[in-house]
Amino acid sequence: MTDQPAPAPDTPKSHGRLAVRPTLRPRELMTNTPDLAGAWTAKIITLFPEAFPGVLGESLTGKALQEGKWRLEKIHLREFGIGKHRNVDDTPAGGGAGMVLRPDVMGNAIDFAMDGTPPNRDDWPLVYLSPRGKRFDQATARRWSNAQGVTMICGRFEGLDDRVLYHYGIEEVSLGDFVLTGGEIAAQAMIDATVRLLPDVLGNAQSIEEESHSHGLLEHPQFTKPAEWRGLPIPEVLMSGHHGKIAEWRQKMAEKITRERRPDMLKPSSDDQR
Amino acid sequence: MTDQPAPAPDTPKSHGRLAVRPTLRPRELMTNTPDLAGAWTAKIITLFPEAFPGVLGESLTGKALQEGKWRLEKIHLREFGIGKHRNVDDTPAGGGAGMVLRPDVMGNAIDFAMDGTPPNRDDWPLVYLSPRGKRFDQATARRWSNAQGVTMICGRFEGLDDRVLYHYGIEEVSLGDFVLTGGEIAAQAMIDATVRLLPDVLGNAQSIEEESHSHGLLEHPQFTKPAEWRGLPIPEVLMSGHHGKIAEWRQKMAEKITRERRPDMLKPSSDDQR
Repeated sequence: MTDQPAPAPDTPKSHGRLAVRPTLRPRELMTNTPDLAGAWTAKIITLFPEAFPGVLGESLTGKALQEGKWRLEKIHLREFGIGKHRNVDDTPAGGGAGMVLRPDVMGNAIDFAMDGTPPNRDDWPLVYLSPRGKRFDQATARRWSNAQGVTMICGRFEGLDDRVLYHYGIEEVSLGDFVLTGGEIAAQAMIDATVRLLPDVLGNAQSIEEESHSHGLLEHPQFTKPAEWRGLPIPEVLMSGHHGKIAEWRQKMAEKITRERRPDMLKPSSDDQR
Repeated sequence: MTDQPAPAPDTPKSHGRLAVRPTLRPRELMTNTPDLAGAWTAKIITLFPEAFPGVLGESLTGKALQEGKWRLEKIHLREFGIGKHRNVDDTPAGGGAGMVLRPDVMGNAIDFAMDGTPPNRDDWPLVYLSPRGKRFDQATARRWSNAQGVTMICGRFEGLDDRVLYHYGIEEVSLGDFVLTGGEIAAQAMIDATVRLLPDVLGNAQSIEEESHSHGLLEHPQFTKPAEWRGLPIPEVLMSGHHGKIAEWRQKMAEKITRERRPDMLKPSSDDQR
């Protein structure tokens, strides 16, 4: 980002530097789930804390959250707002529609969130959810699941003052090539994909291995009872009990479906170079 | 999907055909939001109806939901389950980990959901959220926002019996190249991206036009007050008041960021051929 304004000499870029400054409220109030030492933690900076855990509170991720296998810490951006109305945004410099999140407000929220996290960003990524970012994928989920936690900044409105991204060296990540009202749903999707890779979260570890995108092919079709439904039988090979033939058929179908739908997955991906 | 089992001659493929059959409970119980005639409607088949509207109940999408500018209809798959325990899944034919959603159970839920929708699938897409599908993007959101509504099937476990996809000619759509615990978060992301394109949902129509992915470039950086933050000034041109120069700088920055981060967006996209 070479066209960015250069930092003044006395304010070094703070990649990996931990800012320790007084916080607005006692830490205990921020803890929403059992604080088991070492549990993987998602810290979410958002204007809509009540949207969390949302779907993440259900099913396997919800059970794991209850059991303290991961933690969720919501940081309400509004509490860092300015003035009586706790303003968090202002009009874009240079004009234009919408509102932009203020750097001073977001900076204080980020300092609060990163306080006490490991200095190496590989151990605790700091990410901004934005359609301008690198696309989130299974490799990103795997990388994050190997960290101690991740801090996610949910955007709203026309986005975040760019100086914040520059100052903290924030990783911009996109859920895909579409525009959302805010980053909250994207955060939930990324947390879901990451948390299910943590040890002991999925009941059946084998499931992960067999799934789409974990071995570079789309998954083969699945069938279950009844043996015939609306005139359609289950493919004969699957009823044969012949494990070798079943495995062979599944591999062939996975390759066929991948070739038809996602030929890009069979080539060395250009995504890897980004 | 030519390797699929062929339908028996007396059960034609039901693309666009409306099944009218007795439902399990009166329709009124299914209506969760004001039923204004003609409002765009998302019907969600899910095992976790309590996860909706979730984040969609907040902010602009929530306000629009309250005002009846779109409708949400939750269809609880469990209610179509079999036996005392209302089972919805069974073990995969041919063996393997996990459970597969039964075709008979899902078939009845789909018939219920599609009852009364327009026969042409362009007017009311029927989609299954799956990592095997075509990637969701802004063009899909635009297409769906021009329909009268959409029915979304949220997967769980090892997926859905493939005969259901074949029988109904269901469109498989993926949120991205990663694996989620279930389709619920993907459904919320896609509804959010679609609903905000409906008339009168976003307060400021101009905002849509200026956003990433609506004009084929990533968005230029944004700045707001204060003019200087942690030694970093807002770029001078944005403070000049010279509209022509500001527009030129923003265009140049959008092109630069797109070239650096997403060169694939500048080439004719291979996505278009899928």
